[in-house]
Amino acid sequence: MTLSGGITMVPAAMASPDKKRQVIHHVFFWLKNPNSTEDLNKLLDGLRSLEKIEAVRQYHIGIPALTEARAVVDKTYAVSALSFFDDLEGQNAYQVHPLHKKFVETCSPLWSRIQVYDAVDL
Amino acid sequence: MTLSGGITMVPAAMASPDKKRQVIHHVFFWLKNPNSTEDLNKLLDGLRSLEKIEAVRQYHIGIPALTEARAVVDKTYAVSALSFFDDLEGQNAYQVHPLHKKFVETCSPLWSRIQVYDAVDL
Repeated sequence: MTLSGGITMVPAAMASPDKKRQVIHHVFFWLKNPNSTEDLNKLLDGLRSLEKIEAVRQYHIGIPALTEARAVVDKTYAVSALSFFDDLEGQNAYQVHPLHKKFVETCSPLWSRIQVYDAVDL
Repeated sequence: MTLSGGITMVPAAMASPDKKRQVIHHVFFWLKNPNSTEDLNKLLDGLRSLEKIEAVRQYHIGIPALTEARAVVDKTYAVSALSFFDDLEGQNAYQVHPLHKKFVETCSPLWSRIQVYDAVDL
């Protein structure tokens, strides 16, 4: 299917809204004070609290892996958090959950940048 | 642990090299011709072939989800591929696997940009 506007749309995804499709939420964090273990631990504590949110199906906290250094691989982030949801509704419930709100309130002063990717299974 | 050089290092990860830790490989693709269904389908066919690589534990092909539009969420990519490996060795085996080499050869002319994140479980 060709669409105007320069955005690729996948026909299957257009045909049925992605309400019932698994949603993968991947967030990368850069710290204001990258040498502060205290700040890092605060962020990790905050991230660990998010696993308790009912809608979260799989949850992984990561750091850059020691894979081959290639120009296309971004290894500059401090910590990453990957979560899976059954559907868009689950992700929406997560965003407004008190634990998520508390996390943002407590931890957002720690980071200089976050980068988020939300993908829905094809 | 405080290190010079401006890079955050997590003590646990330093203590034991991440050979035995799960590796998560997330790749985002932007197409040269974002309106070409033919190119998109070629890329999807190529991505589907990668699931057959023995070292791949979990595999998800995605497109941007219809989550809330926020400045920190990048929804400009066409397709994403998320794969899990038991360890760094698995990821290394994947990179040099004939199916992966064939994928890069066939599909790299289709993309204008890729962005890769390799994370190891904390």
